[in-house]
Amino acid sequence: MTEEIQPAQGAYVIPGAEFTRDTTYIEDRITADGRDGWPVEAGRYRLVAARACPWANRTAIVRRLLGLEAAISLGMPGPTHDERSWTFDLDPAGVDPVLGIERLQQAYFARFPDYPRGITVPAVVEVASGKVVTNNYAQITIDFETEWGALHRDGAPDLYPVELRAEIDEINDGIFRDVNNGVYRAGFAGSQSAYEKAYDRLFDRLDALEARLAGQRYLVGDTVTEADVRLFTTLVRFDAVYHGHFRCNRNKLSEMPALYSYAKDLFQTPGFGDTIDFVQIKQHYHLVHTDINPTGIVPKGPDLSGWLSPHGRESLGGRPFGDGTPPAPPLPGEQVPPGHGAA
Amino acid sequence: MTEEIQPAQGAYVIPGAEFTRDTTYIEDRITADGRDGWPVEAGRYRLVAARACPWANRTAIVRRLLGLEAAISLGMPGPTHDERSWTFDLDPAGVDPVLGIERLQQAYFARFPDYPRGITVPAVVEVASGKVVTNNYAQITIDFETEWGALHRDGAPDLYPVELRAEIDEINDGIFRDVNNGVYRAGFAGSQSAYEKAYDRLFDRLDALEARLAGQRYLVGDTVTEADVRLFTTLVRFDAVYHGHFRCNRNKLSEMPALYSYAKDLFQTPGFGDTIDFVQIKQHYHLVHTDINPTGIVPKGPDLSGWLSPHGRESLGGRPFGDGTPPAPPLPGEQVPPGHGAA
Repeated sequence: MTEEIQPAQGAYVIPGAEFTRDTTYIEDRITADGRDGWPVEAGRYRLVAARACPWANRTAIVRRLLGLEAAISLGMPGPTHDERSWTFDLDPAGVDPVLGIERLQQAYFARFPDYPRGITVPAVVEVASGKVVTNNYAQITIDFETEWGALHRDGAPDLYPVELRAEIDEINDGIFRDVNNGVYRAGFAGSQSAYEKAYDRLFDRLDALEARLAGQRYLVGDTVTEADVRLFTTLVRFDAVYHGHFRCNRNKLSEMPALYSYAKDLFQTPGFGDTIDFVQIKQHYHLVHTDINPTGIVPKGPDLSGWLSPHGRESLGGRPFGDGTPPAPPLPGEQVPPGHGAA
Repeated sequence: MTEEIQPAQGAYVIPGAEFTRDTTYIEDRITADGRDGWPVEAGRYRLVAARACPWANRTAIVRRLLGLEAAISLGMPGPTHDERSWTFDLDPAGVDPVLGIERLQQAYFARFPDYPRGITVPAVVEVASGKVVTNNYAQITIDFETEWGALHRDGAPDLYPVELRAEIDEINDGIFRDVNNGVYRAGFAGSQSAYEKAYDRLFDRLDALEARLAGQRYLVGDTVTEADVRLFTTLVRFDAVYHGHFRCNRNKLSEMPALYSYAKDLFQTPGFGDTIDFVQIKQHYHLVHTDINPTGIVPKGPDLSGWLSPHGRESLGGRPFGDGTPPAPPLPGEQVPPGHGAA
């Protein structure tokens, strides 16, 4: 997760300040030609992606949609972490069964012994060396889509079509600034004015997206793309976390008809909703951010059953997977436990 | 406000504990026969009732409905207070213009120099002596209704009809326990289990009230009664404060059709909505409870415009004021400022 995990004391809010995301990442890329020293290769890498984190969730969804499960294994840290690292506390003995580590920090330190930044997910780790190759989440999904093509499943959709990339990049830019990161800017604001600025930008952007999605099934083109993945991971957390915990409370997502039905449509599309663990999502935010929720109470609501209700978006046309097909069900061991989804 | 203002440090949450309301009050009564030494008399007493507080709000509404404004003046502390007392910080020079005090604590100390409990609103103060007569909010409205009859306006409704008192008392008892105080039990819970118990009881009770109010316009009988006043002051604060700040988030009030339209109906009834200052309500909870909102951010939402939208409850029949009439508009100086209501 790219929120800053401060080395000193795990604080998220800096009084008086705007929240500024550290966007410096380990920028090595895994490519078909291996030009950074990290060639695409089945079984060589492990994706570490906590269920809780929206930035990691993107990579889990794209891996599912493209059928990269056999080529890239998945490690899942638990929903909470200490001040310095995500941990594998849900695994037997608290150890990732492939990497053999307890704390994701170990993989960062294997790469850079004095790694000074936040220990974030998603991270792609080379299994043999135990080193983090990259934590540059925005690039990871693009590379899954464009560099790993030889290992995509049959019927994998094209999530980043060449002819739509400019439009996808442009809409992603605004969504990142005002929505994906915008909810954090509201939630971690150190002053009332910084909060209100983030809130206004967030809802202005959501209003624009509401208008856009009233007449079309997906954000760009008539199929699911990278843009939908990025918007989805914030929307699916909106009512459960951002509305209350981050004070993004002009209205719930469920009060924006087009955006909510759009998000429900994606939720019910194989590869999206089957990656969503609401229990872990709620635990993560409410237990980790002790400076905005010091009591550590995890809200029991909201009622999430609406995610499985009819979305009615089929009438807008669109073909979720274009000329491709839906992915198979999640692998054993990667299923969201009963009671953790929307049911 | 009857929440405990702790002498030591202004904490509201006791880790590991359920929230327990101190229900010991100054129980003197102002009566027609003056048997406690405090006879009903126009101009003798001042009601101190902060806009923010739901318990004080009851008394402000009943005073309006019964037209007691000329007989009992109104002092209004600001929305925030320090650890030990509500203060008159909205008045010129921070001094209540009638009582001549800056802190409500002074009126408590005038009565009991070593008063050991929380300095709460509502409080009724004898103007001449500057002493608090009573802060027993549950009794104050009943006495306004039953003891102050000689000073009621022409057309004042009967808010506590003799033949309905048993039913009103019974429904008030459950509403107090699970709703009025229930939201505090959720919000000030010191453990996850205490919170979840309060949450379940709250929403079970709201579900029962939703069913009851689907078929009848008011809680008891076919006119506004004391029971409606008591339920209203919690419902009107629900989406603005309790849903987020107190984690009462199974759903918003606006997602419960009968309860929401019932509350809107009351809001739009003279004497109810004209006492509601959403700015003060939001400031109070989010700024005073620093142990559950340490950043002091006041949420900008929710959108409150729905309070003025059509409620459609006329079709259920009912006569808000029975054989009486609506109250006149609020007095000059007692109007909610522009921008502080639902508009």
